[in-house]
Amino acid sequence: MADSLNCDLKSLSPLQLFERVTEQGEKVRALKAGKAPKDEIDAAVRMLLSLKLSYKTTTGQDYQAGLPPKDLVLINNGTTKEEDEDLVDPWNVQTSNAKGVDYDKLIVRFGSSKIDTDLINRIERAIGQKPHHFLRRGIFFSHRDMDQILDAYENKKPFYLYTGRGPSSQAMHVGHLIPFLFTKWLQEVFDVPLVIQLTDDEKYLWKDMTVEKAYEYARENAKDIIACGFDINKTFIFSDLDYLGTSAGFYKNIVKVQKHVTFNQVKGIFGFTDSDCIGKISFPAIQAAPSFSSSFPQIFNGKENIQCLIPCAIDQDPYFRMTRDVAPRIGQPKPALLHSVFFPALQGAQTKMSASDPNSSIFLTDTPKQIKTKINKHAFSGGRDTIEEHRKYGGNCDVDVSFMYLTFFLEDDDRLEQLKQLSPAGNSCKKIKTCRFFSSPLLLPTQEQSCVPTLCCAVPFGNLKHI
Amino acid sequence: MADSLNCDLKSLSPLQLFERVTEQGEKVRALKAGKAPKDEIDAAVRMLLSLKLSYKTTTGQDYQAGLPPKDLVLINNGTTKEEDEDLVDPWNVQTSNAKGVDYDKLIVRFGSSKIDTDLINRIERAIGQKPHHFLRRGIFFSHRDMDQILDAYENKKPFYLYTGRGPSSQAMHVGHLIPFLFTKWLQEVFDVPLVIQLTDDEKYLWKDMTVEKAYEYARENAKDIIACGFDINKTFIFSDLDYLGTSAGFYKNIVKVQKHVTFNQVKGIFGFTDSDCIGKISFPAIQAAPSFSSSFPQIFNGKENIQCLIPCAIDQDPYFRMTRDVAPRIGQPKPALLHSVFFPALQGAQTKMSASDPNSSIFLTDTPKQIKTKINKHAFSGGRDTIEEHRKYGGNCDVDVSFMYLTFFLEDDDRLEQLKQLSPAGNSCKKIKTCRFFSSPLLLPTQEQSCVPTLCCAVPFGNLKHI
Repeated sequence: MADSLNCDLKSLSPLQLFERVTEQGEKVRALKAGKAPKDEIDAAVRMLLSLKLSYKTTTGQDYQAGLPPKDLVLINNGTTKEEDEDLVDPWNVQTSNAKGVDYDKLIVRFGSSKIDTDLINRIERAIGQKPHHFLRRGIFFSHRDMDQILDAYENKKPFYLYTGRGPSSQAMHVGHLIPFLFTKWLQEVFDVPLVIQLTDDEKYLWKDMTVEKAYEYARENAKDIIACGFDINKTFIFSDLDYLGTSAGFYKNIVKVQKHVTFNQVKGIFGFTDSDCIGKISFPAIQAAPSFSSSFPQIFNGKENIQCLIPCAIDQDPYFRMTRDVAPRIGQPKPALLHSVFFPALQGAQTKMSASDPNSSIFLTDTPKQIKTKINKHAFSGGRDTIEEHRKYGGNCDVDVSFMYLTFFLEDDDRLEQLKQLSPAGNSCKKIKTCRFFSSPLLLPTQEQSCVPTLCCAVPFGNLKHI
Repeated sequence: MADSLNCDLKSLSPLQLFERVTEQGEKVRALKAGKAPKDEIDAAVRMLLSLKLSYKTTTGQDYQAGLPPKDLVLINNGTTKEEDEDLVDPWNVQTSNAKGVDYDKLIVRFGSSKIDTDLINRIERAIGQKPHHFLRRGIFFSHRDMDQILDAYENKKPFYLYTGRGPSSQAMHVGHLIPFLFTKWLQEVFDVPLVIQLTDDEKYLWKDMTVEKAYEYARENAKDIIACGFDINKTFIFSDLDYLGTSAGFYKNIVKVQKHVTFNQVKGIFGFTDSDCIGKISFPAIQAAPSFSSSFPQIFNGKENIQCLIPCAIDQDPYFRMTRDVAPRIGQPKPALLHSVFFPALQGAQTKMSASDPNSSIFLTDTPKQIKTKINKHAFSGGRDTIEEHRKYGGNCDVDVSFMYLTFFLEDDDRLEQLKQLSPAGNSCKKIKTCRFFSSPLLLPTQEQSCVPTLCCAVPFGNLKHI
């Protein structure tokens, strides 16, 4: 049996082997906890030992719980990634491809699952309405255990949503809205509680700012988030600096996670070094803890083990891979995840929009005039090099930032398709390289053939601060 | 000038040089903060650069704030300490010398100051009464900045006391009482607030126990601590697991410390490795934070920068060396310290009494009968190998554990001296190697010439649980 097992195992990647060992370890623990018959436990332990041996043979390393094999670990370590690999971690997104990060490759590297037509159809059946265009257009493209959430929903079992924001500046930009807009929709269709973590402590630790400034940014950002229109009876927004000092359950979960994650692991997952401060090193536990309902006894009446669903951009996945590894070891359910693509910078999809580079970003505080200027001045154009070429081939939607923004913000599928089809023929613009053929997402065109952006849905976002 | 300076500096040890650089760095910061004249600042900066150069020449390493040179660092790393050096860190105390740790050497290695006659006399003048016998007998033997505390006291400026306990078991032993008994005396004579931290989170992280068990031990230990009789209007005892979730100020100070200490530093100070969990790695900040009055806004009405005095056993000093390094960088005063020797295990002064080895310890829950049995069975005797030798030379007080205990608990100096003098002549005991010539500290002798311990002050401690 061991031979045929080893034979099967040879076809597995180091990561798949790692996951097999982890699963088997959990199985052994469950059998022991459930006081299963001795021979059953013994068989499971033998299997575990075989798997560990295979893992060592394949990777040359001893299996260490929670420490994935090198090829998985490297995804977060820019210095050692392969030449043509995209850099994606909680602090950096960079690719050499003008069309943006290769998300199919990322799914394989991160070990998540693609949101395919079957899953989207299942969501549609469950909620009885058309899924959000973020799902239909692959903006939320990857998941972990979304099936379990749907099982829970269909069986009328409770679950809750958790998302968050690192308040690194006073103003949020439109890219920051993506998880919140989607989370608002999820809350509406599933009618569930939502917790929103503002990691002001993280920003204090990472940036050159005071505790007071980080907390101020958290408050300011909270206003923008509130303006998205969450259910006020089912939404809890908190600053870490605040909530840690007022919650009976939050710190207990943090310290539980901190006991079950080593420096080796966070080094592998986040690329921390010996020169990093101990605050950064232990922070991942603080982002992990809201995945457990016992962190919010006031919301769940002390009820533990309520399943959690986390909508977030995929660069946050390392935190939750770690959380999912720890969860069973502290007696908690693993959180499920829905991952979004990144919102492209004005300069192009090689990197995401970043608040620390004002020219890359459209802020929620920008006036319609400022937005128009930024789009005209900075948004990377899919226009061709000459008027002749442009008339002949039309604009290139795949790299045109304005068109990308429309895929995020223009809900009407037909209109979006129409705009795309218009590109070869309909453009009357003469200044091909300096203006935006496809218009801005915030400044939606009223006349498709004009290259002058006009205001359509700009006002709701531009005015969020005044709500 | 630089040459003569370098000449002077050559006579300094790496540690002394390190401290000179640190001091000079603080001086530069203070000058800048105080907007001193430019030429004064420039001169101080030049001096700082010279000192850093000397440090590099002497140690071969660049100066790094908070990271002392290797020979200081090694005190906490058992694997690399010199052969004849005592091992002293927050988790281990071990020496090959039956008389116990060489505390004079420890003062030099730790860079603290000896509590000398001058300081004891100054304390006596300040409080207008005889100092505690722990001071008179060198049980509290080392300090940092105690002069500043006395300055504050004489100038009617406020200060507060901070001590603590790691609740690793249900029952405390008599050794644990030493800092508390002394702290109670300090509170009495100086009439100041006191905070007592119970690090249940630390014990959860370090030991194989649940959060709930650690918290339960904290509550149990609190009862023993309360029984010492602190001023109930000026004493705040807290569990970390509890207090972190209820304090507006505590976590903010923790995260400030965590931002200013790197993994390299805690590795150097505490000997952590890459395999340690991130909870252990970041814990030192949690023990540091109560050194700052802003961690207790409810006690100090939000007043910051009140000076803190920490009475503790010297094995806790690494935490506070780190704290003192961080303090000026987060705008807080450095805590002052008073260090005690270790309370010897029953088996002898080579190691300290440890709750995890019941045979080494007298617990506060032990009955008088159990205490008697433990003393008779386990306490290392200063008696000689034969009756003849014992009659001729008398017992050896320097290694006799029972006599050591008397130095801790028998307040009467004359009686202690009398007992010591009695040893050569007065012993009528026939079972020299199996009974205790000097009696137990808890079971003080009523008849000096008898080797049968009798109860004298045993009851107060033995019954603490029932108070």
